[in-house]
Amino acid sequence: MSDDEQELGITERKEYSPGEWYAEVVQKAELADYAPMGGFIVTRPRGYALWEGVQDHLDEKFKKTGAQNAYFPALIPESFLERESDIVEGFDPEVAWVTHGGHEELEERLAFRPTSESIITPFMSDWVRSHRDLPLRLNQWCSVIRWEATETKPFFRTKEFLWQEGHTAHESEDEAWDETMTRLDQYENLYEDVLAIPVMRGRKPPHDKFPGADTTTTVEALMPDGKSVQGGTSHYLGQGFAEAYDLTYTDEDEEEAVAHTTSWGLSWRALGALIMTHSDDQGFVCPPRIAPEQVVVVPIWNEDNREEVLDYAEGVADDLEAADVRVELDDRDERNPGFKFNEWELKGVPVRIEIGPNEVEDEELTVVHRPDGENAVEGRENVGETVEDHFDKVYAKLYDAAKENLEENVREAYETSQILGTIGQHGGYVKTPWCGDQACEQVIKEEIAAEIVMVPMDRDEEPIGDECGVCGDEACETAYFAKSY
Amino acid sequence: MSDDEQELGITERKEYSPGEWYAEVVQKAELADYAPMGGFIVTRPRGYALWEGVQDHLDEKFKKTGAQNAYFPALIPESFLERESDIVEGFDPEVAWVTHGGHEELEERLAFRPTSESIITPFMSDWVRSHRDLPLRLNQWCSVIRWEATETKPFFRTKEFLWQEGHTAHESEDEAWDETMTRLDQYENLYEDVLAIPVMRGRKPPHDKFPGADTTTTVEALMPDGKSVQGGTSHYLGQGFAEAYDLTYTDEDEEEAVAHTTSWGLSWRALGALIMTHSDDQGFVCPPRIAPEQVVVVPIWNEDNREEVLDYAEGVADDLEAADVRVELDDRDERNPGFKFNEWELKGVPVRIEIGPNEVEDEELTVVHRPDGENAVEGRENVGETVEDHFDKVYAKLYDAAKENLEENVREAYETSQILGTIGQHGGYVKTPWCGDQACEQVIKEEIAAEIVMVPMDRDEEPIGDECGVCGDEACETAYFAKSY
Repeated sequence: MSDDEQELGITERKEYSPGEWYAEVVQKAELADYAPMGGFIVTRPRGYALWEGVQDHLDEKFKKTGAQNAYFPALIPESFLERESDIVEGFDPEVAWVTHGGHEELEERLAFRPTSESIITPFMSDWVRSHRDLPLRLNQWCSVIRWEATETKPFFRTKEFLWQEGHTAHESEDEAWDETMTRLDQYENLYEDVLAIPVMRGRKPPHDKFPGADTTTTVEALMPDGKSVQGGTSHYLGQGFAEAYDLTYTDEDEEEAVAHTTSWGLSWRALGALIMTHSDDQGFVCPPRIAPEQVVVVPIWNEDNREEVLDYAEGVADDLEAADVRVELDDRDERNPGFKFNEWELKGVPVRIEIGPNEVEDEELTVVHRPDGENAVEGRENVGETVEDHFDKVYAKLYDAAKENLEENVREAYETSQILGTIGQHGGYVKTPWCGDQACEQVIKEEIAAEIVMVPMDRDEEPIGDECGVCGDEACETAYFAKSY
Repeated sequence: MSDDEQELGITERKEYSPGEWYAEVVQKAELADYAPMGGFIVTRPRGYALWEGVQDHLDEKFKKTGAQNAYFPALIPESFLERESDIVEGFDPEVAWVTHGGHEELEERLAFRPTSESIITPFMSDWVRSHRDLPLRLNQWCSVIRWEATETKPFFRTKEFLWQEGHTAHESEDEAWDETMTRLDQYENLYEDVLAIPVMRGRKPPHDKFPGADTTTTVEALMPDGKSVQGGTSHYLGQGFAEAYDLTYTDEDEEEAVAHTTSWGLSWRALGALIMTHSDDQGFVCPPRIAPEQVVVVPIWNEDNREEVLDYAEGVADDLEAADVRVELDDRDERNPGFKFNEWELKGVPVRIEIGPNEVEDEELTVVHRPDGENAVEGRENVGETVEDHFDKVYAKLYDAAKENLEENVREAYETSQILGTIGQHGGYVKTPWCGDQACEQVIKEEIAAEIVMVPMDRDEEPIGDECGVCGDEACETAYFAKSY
């Protein structure tokens, strides 16, 4: 193995050291690097292209469902944060403070936005006067900072992260709740259709809601190491924020009324879930729809047939480009085919097309899937349609594997030792009847750092047993315990 | 005039109070609002849509010419800024400093990025090893903060602003210079083709270069009030940054070499130039290609024909939408046509289609241009093509008017009193032979706050006279004096 090859390959194993393996995949697939300040990362072009894929997909859906993009200041005066007391309490320890501008100390310090309710809601209040101005639906793509002192994990745990935050106001609770569900549907759709990750939908338990929210809903994705990822949250905020920031309007009867608001956010953690779910010991694995490069064409020649193989390969790449496929032709002279295969596998290109003298002679292509190496010989004609078929197959493999992992890893337990034992042995989700008391979560948390990641969306759903799986008191709902990112 | 109408209309006059008029247009056309902290604004959906138009146009061009988007931290350690001494000196007084994270004081304070050379170049240095890794072209869409204590003017003067910053590394000066020119071409193309604003290209005088740059090139646009706007800058940085941040590579002869770098940026000031150039005493005027709404269809009915007029108008709007035209059907019951005309004129919709019973009967449309109210009766068929023709006409009117303003306002002067008198009387650009000494600019600046906004791109171009127009010493080039935003 040459120096180059050693450097190229993933040395850690996903099964045995998932944390180190993840960090290695992220860096060697050139998705992100660690910044010199703890908690910050640099998103490299191949990683940023994934985020652009998420943006393109969601932004189109948001706009079709009435949301408009806007941009609010990155810095928020401390007095604004203080107007909603739950917000202050929820974010106070996590805020990065700007205290000086140039050589002057500021009269009032400014927070780098940890989330923007406190600056957006007052403006919504200015812009909304009558029921005709509602619903008002704003969205912002931006970065936020939450100054948490934890180990950096690219896309999962970073002090600064990229996200979108939606903020809407409505006339009624029903409309605001519909909005909350529309956004959760869109998040679910992103995970399922684009990222090939099945998710579960639910509510956060009351003690883990967004500060000040009436209800926080979530989509949760199960990682291969048995931990849950909160994939995106959509909050019905009730009227609390509208009251705090004076978001009122004149209703149809000319009476003053208080709006119902929502907010909803999805961050680049979606990329963390994507990378961790599908990738393997050879590197990054990526579903075709969001892959920065969807196809790599690798010509395999010797001195006698170099020109004809290259010509043929160029023709294939040109046809794919004309069919709007993101294609790379790897015609580097200084690398052999084996090296190229490894490199593009590491980088997560879902479909490889190999072209040697046999393919040229028979007017065919050899199509190879990432991650399993399954290959097929296809005709040269209609190469655009051919690769689309293979994209569907690769997507189905990835989705089905993740779905199987999820389905096998939702278990039930009815007492503390069973909850602890099941999570300890298998990871995944453990459903248990729950009395609603945070103290019962604390018991589990202290033992194995698992928490209640969700409860069922339907508040009227009967719990799976009558007695709380931890304390034995009367159960009011079913809790899903899991370790989580 | 009703209360609503008074509130809707622009009360200031562009000719007599351009500053107040501009602020009123920006707010009443719902493009932006002032934030509570001086120097910050809130970009409303109609203003942000303009920025998305700029992004879409430039991003496609950037990607076609080899640039890749990435994302670097918003906060930069002070020690990074200090590695390039010109950068420190150039930005030190304008930096917003984060000094606290949560309740802790940071060991090293962090700057909210004023520009990102100091954090991007070290990573480029890590990523570039061999000449095969060059050219490397990165671009970032983000916000930056420069803490200048000046009066807030939306999109022109704000402490936080949105921009893109490109950063590239090359093997040779020639390649880096070509890159510098490619980006300037793209900026010029944005102004000319999308924003309908002619620009002049040139170099900044040495004392006004980007801190640390070898050469700063600029596109300058002339506003109707006679002031120049620096529309976008593209810098050839030479090898200074590469040396400071150790951006070296192994060349084809296996020797270590220092890269040549460029950076180039365009901010939302482009939107300020757009709004100020074309708008009038009725409100915002916007070229069709970038208009948030390109066409408004206004049905004009009475009780007898309401249904048929509305049906016909809906059909027209549907056809336009199918033809990918951004169209709004204003079928509000509670507003009369006159009110609607005023509102959409204020908001800058370039083409209005009026549909009354006559249009329905004759299967026609009345098409009205913003800004001049010129109208034409057109057939109902192929409405998509019809409006595209009118878009071209509206664009040509706007561009031609701006071009005429520019051509009439480049004058020559050969002595101090003439420079002062010409700018004082007419505004615009005054070309004068210049000795190259900043002191001569200072003489003019102190009298009438005009400065040298550019010198010719071609360093070998002969000055228009032998003696400096200010001091009379030997002239080395031609300076373009103007007041500027």
